[in-house]
Amino acid sequence: MGYDIHRLVEGRPLILGGVTIPYERGLLGHSDADALAHAITDALLGALALGDIGTHFPDTDPQWAGADSLTLLHQTVALVASRGFEVVNVDASILAERPKLMPYIQSMRERLAAVLRLPCDAVSVKAKTNEGQDAVGRREAIAVHAVV
Amino acid sequence: MGYDIHRLVEGRPLILGGVTIPYERGLLGHSDADALAHAITDALLGALALGDIGTHFPDTDPQWAGADSLTLLHQTVALVASRGFEVVNVDASILAERPKLMPYIQSMRERLAAVLRLPCDAVSVKAKTNEGQDAVGRREAIAVHAVV
Amino acid sequence: MGYDIHRLVEGRPLILGGVTIPYERGLLGHSDADALAHAITDALLGALALGDIGTHFPDTDPQWAGADSLTLLHQTVALVASRGFEVVNVDASILAERPKLMPYIQSMRERLAAVLRLPCDAVSVKAKTNEGQDAVGRREAIAVHAVV
Ligand SMILES: [Mg+2]
Ligand SMILES: [Mg+2]
Ligand SMILES: [Mg+2]
Repeated sequence: MGYDIHRLVEGRPLILGGVTIPYERGLLGHSDADALAHAITDALLGALALGDIGTHFPDTDPQWAGADSLTLLHQTVALVASRGFEVVNVDASILAERPKLMPYIQSMRERLAAVLRLPCDAVSVKAKTNEGQDAVGRREAIAVHAVV
Repeated sequence: MGYDIHRLVEGRPLILGGVTIPYERGLLGHSDADALAHAITDALLGALALGDIGTHFPDTDPQWAGADSLTLLHQTVALVASRGFEVVNVDASILAERPKLMPYIQSMRERLAAVLRLPCDAVSVKAKTNEGQDAVGRREAIAVHAVV
Repeated sequence: MGYDIHRLVEGRPLILGGVTIPYERGLLGHSDADALAHAITDALLGALALGDIGTHFPDTDPQWAGADSLTLLHQTVALVASRGFEVVNVDASILAERPKLMPYIQSMRERLAAVLRLPCDAVSVKAKTNEGQDAVGRREAIAVHAVV
C-alpha cells in the first residue's frame, strides 16, 4: 500500500499520473510532486518490502530535483521485475477538492499503464473530494492512496 | 481499495452499512450518505478498474437523491458478477469519534453480507475513533477505508 | 487493512513496532500506544473478520494499561494460526512529521518479524511525513496504515 500527500501552491504545475492538469495551483515538492505516481511507487516497494520512496529517491538528492515521477516509477517497476515479480493490477484513489479530475482519469491510466507495463484495464484511478474536510477539503493539499 | 468521508450534520439520519444508528446527527450527502457502503462500492469498482462511485452514480443525478446506498452496492455486485468475478471477502474500518458503533457492527455485517452475497464471516467491519484529531476527531465527519 | 492514530504528548515514550525512539514526546494511549503494532493487529483481525483491536483488547480493560503492544500482536498472531491461517507478508506506512524514523525502520521490521513469525524481508515498514498538513503535519499525532 502507498499513501502520499502534497501541498497545493501557486506557481507550480499540477501533475498527477504523469498528466499535466490545467489549474491555478500545483503540487509542491522536490520532484514534480506527482502524488499519484509516488503513492503507486510506494505501494510497489511496500509489496516487496524493498524500502520506500524516501530511501530510494531521497528528496535531498539533487538528482531528483524537478524529476518526472514516472521515471521514479519506471525504475521501481524495473526493480520489481529484477526480483522476479510482476505487477498484476493497481488501484488508486485521489483525494482532491478541486479541480474536477474526471476528464483526466483516462489519460492518467494510460500513462501509468505504459510505465507499469500493464493493460489499461488493470490500472484503476479513482477520484473524489474530501467533502470539505481537513487540508484536502480546504483545497490546500491533494492526497492519494494506492494498492497493488 | 475504497475511501469515503461525509460530514456529520443535524437533521439527517446516521446510516452505516444499511443500518440506521440512533444519534443526534447524521451524514450529509446526495444519497443516504452511507460512507461504509460507498467505500466498499468504490473498493469493488477499483479492484476491477471499472471507474468509481462518482462515475457510476453521479451525485448530480436526481435518480440517486436520497438513494439507499445498499442499492448502489447491489448494482455494483451485479456488475462484478457480470464480469465473471466474485467477491471473496471485504474488510472495512470506520473512523468515527461518536457515537459508539460497536452495538451496530454485527447488524452492519449482516446487511452488507446479504448484499455482497457472502457469508457474514467474510465481511469485516471494524470501528475506531480518530483520537480527537482532525475533522473526524472533532465529530464533524465520519470516514471509512475498505478493501476487497 | 488496519489504521491507527495516536496523539503525541509530553511525558510519554515514543514506541513504534516495539522500538523505543528517542524523541521529546511520545504517543498517548491506554497501552504503550504503539500505533504501528496496533494497525498491523487490526489488519490481521480484519483479514479474518475476527473483530477489531477494540473488541479484543478494550482500552477500558486495566489488563492492557501500559501493555506492550507486541504482546497484543503476538496473541493476534496466535489467534490467526489457531484458525488455520498464516500471515504471508505485512506492509505498513507510518505518517510522522518528526522525528526522522529511517534510523529505526530496520529494528522495527526485526521486532515485528519475530512476533509475526515471518522473515524480515516479508515485513515492510515505510515512513513519510504528511507534508505539514493536518494533525500529523502539525506534529500533534502519528498515524499508520497497514495491510496484510
Ligand atoms: Mg510525494
Ligand atoms: Mg460517499
Ligand atoms: Mg491504537
